[in-house]
Amino acid sequence: MGFILSDQNSENKVVIAVDAMGGDFGPKEIIPALDMVLKGRADVFFLIYGDESVINPYLNKHKSVKKNAEIYHTDKMVMNDDKPSAALRASKGSSMRLAIEAVKDGRAQAVVSAGNTGALMAMAKMVLKTVAGIHRPAIASVMPGIKGDTIMLDLGANVLVDAENLVQFALLGSIFARAHKKIEVPSVGLLNIGSEETKGPDHVRLAGEMLSRVDFPGEYVGFVEGNNITDGSVDVIVSDGYAGNIALKTAEGVGKMVKHFVTESFSSNPLAMVGAFFAYFSLRSLKKRMDPRLYNGGVFLGLNGLCIKSHGGADALGFSSAVMLAVRLSREGYIDQVVRDVNNLNDQEGVMNAEVKE
Amino acid sequence: MGFILSDQNSENKVVIAVDAMGGDFGPKEIIPALDMVLKGRADVFFLIYGDESVINPYLNKHKSVKKNAEIYHTDKMVMNDDKPSAALRASKGSSMRLAIEAVKDGRAQAVVSAGNTGALMAMAKMVLKTVAGIHRPAIASVMPGIKGDTIMLDLGANVLVDAENLVQFALLGSIFARAHKKIEVPSVGLLNIGSEETKGPDHVRLAGEMLSRVDFPGEYVGFVEGNNITDGSVDVIVSDGYAGNIALKTAEGVGKMVKHFVTESFSSNPLAMVGAFFAYFSLRSLKKRMDPRLYNGGVFLGLNGLCIKSHGGADALGFSSAVMLAVRLSREGYIDQVVRDVNNLNDQEGVMNAEVKE
Repeated sequence: MGFILSDQNSENKVVIAVDAMGGDFGPKEIIPALDMVLKGRADVFFLIYGDESVINPYLNKHKSVKKNAEIYHTDKMVMNDDKPSAALRASKGSSMRLAIEAVKDGRAQAVVSAGNTGALMAMAKMVLKTVAGIHRPAIASVMPGIKGDTIMLDLGANVLVDAENLVQFALLGSIFARAHKKIEVPSVGLLNIGSEETKGPDHVRLAGEMLSRVDFPGEYVGFVEGNNITDGSVDVIVSDGYAGNIALKTAEGVGKMVKHFVTESFSSNPLAMVGAFFAYFSLRSLKKRMDPRLYNGGVFLGLNGLCIKSHGGADALGFSSAVMLAVRLSREGYIDQVVRDVNNLNDQEGVMNAEVKE
Repeated sequence: MGFILSDQNSENKVVIAVDAMGGDFGPKEIIPALDMVLKGRADVFFLIYGDESVINPYLNKHKSVKKNAEIYHTDKMVMNDDKPSAALRASKGSSMRLAIEAVKDGRAQAVVSAGNTGALMAMAKMVLKTVAGIHRPAIASVMPGIKGDTIMLDLGANVLVDAENLVQFALLGSIFARAHKKIEVPSVGLLNIGSEETKGPDHVRLAGEMLSRVDFPGEYVGFVEGNNITDGSVDVIVSDGYAGNIALKTAEGVGKMVKHFVTESFSSNPLAMVGAFFAYFSLRSLKKRMDPRLYNGGVFLGLNGLCIKSHGGADALGFSSAVMLAVRLSREGYIDQVVRDVNNLNDQEGVMNAEVKE
């Protein structure tokens, strides 16, 4: 980790490998997204993988990207509807695979793709492998909340987990929260159906007991419920991928419903339209505050290298958020911290079972 | 079921037993709530259980309730923070217990309480018992959605369930949807983390297979995801109580966050306040459309008698919604339909195991 290209352009820069062909729009949105990132910070360099004939027209429109990137041509790409197993077998030389390999080879600190989630996870696991001591990777994301952001994981990488997996997710999420929220000891809650210790499934209750005892980079605060995901009362919320994915999708759905009703209501009659005119700036800042594009990016945690999945339908702004997340976590030395802290966790005898069970 | 009081006042009326002492506010909100119900429909009669000295002042302010109710005095009540097991042991003669017993004795078709959820469920199970053939009761609620309401269950009565439980929940939810949405064959989805048949936990996948085969009052449409809870694309969504409770609480949390941001945004500057003035009627109708009070009421399904849990913090409007739900389901003969259809389900050999496993 921390490998720096010798090229003058990339000195002291965070290097991000980009699969330019993934998602619904490919380079059309992805190249402008990289431009947005460069406008925000100058310390980033890109390795871009994909079909040059498709990418180049956009590069010519976004000179700063051209200046701060190397392009690696391939005309092979993973399709959005490929089955993960099939995509994996046929992945050699694809833009997704090459971008992941750039991280494995130490040429990039993180990879971002808007491609097929199942294929990306399968490929990232195969190429990057899990950090020694981590039993399973998890998918994490940043959720907006009343009092601030919350890091949530797992969002669907693992349907069934045991208590130890959850304890490791607490570690992975805490280090994420440190980097994202700039706090030394993030608070960590376990997602459950009540705050009493006797409630919930066995693996959650057992994980709660373990987290009260072990020394890890966060502070365990007990069980939390679904409503705590968006009240910002806790920095990290840990769950299995079944509950986590359902909560994430539910939150997305409610957001969509509210947006639908608000739009409908402000276009329902002339008076309301006048109202919307006067409230224009407030409505705009409101929209921005809850813009799901600013929270785009599912981070695969627990692998030897960061891999971030952008929403397939993300536009330039959405994709740029995912890249910014990759830059931030890389800059904070996320992987090194995980390696250090997972060893510390495994050293706590009687608590963690160091043997890898996959 | 279908028992009608001989009293002239209650002829052909739906009789609802009300625990007047439950919740944060007791009779102060509950008696006005009953008044609201009577303003909406005249075919309801109440049996009110609680402390007369507390109830009477409110009855004197709401004459129509006094005229359409019988009051049963008790000064015993279940406290909001009693442990369910302790509450159950000491429950004899309490307003909650007496109200449930009115349903058992056939004097009321449904009971509504805003009291302690755990105590209410434990007491309702003990007094009313599950419908023959139904293995476990479930908690259901109506969720608002873009294209219409969705019935969701289980919301937390059962953390762990098997596939047969889920199939029975599909039956219980379908009959609920029929009564609530006035549709003959409601569409039913199983909550999962993807729509592919290979995804999700075993009990969900197996339930999916079973629901494709069995003849039940709804039409099984496959797996649905969290975002489908509020898009109104399906009439009934079935899950275990772990995922269901987390989804419900997540939805509540997002609703609260949005309300917070909208309020903040419209009071953030004078222009926005002018905007809010012009948009007053639209904002009001928007607020009403998403008012959680209109969706108050967790229905305990699968028992010999309907029991509805109102939110403990519900005001009069909220409590009246829960009572209206009780009236509607009673009027449609919910329990009789469940008895008929569960027998039909159990007759389908090789699909359901008729033995009761608790």
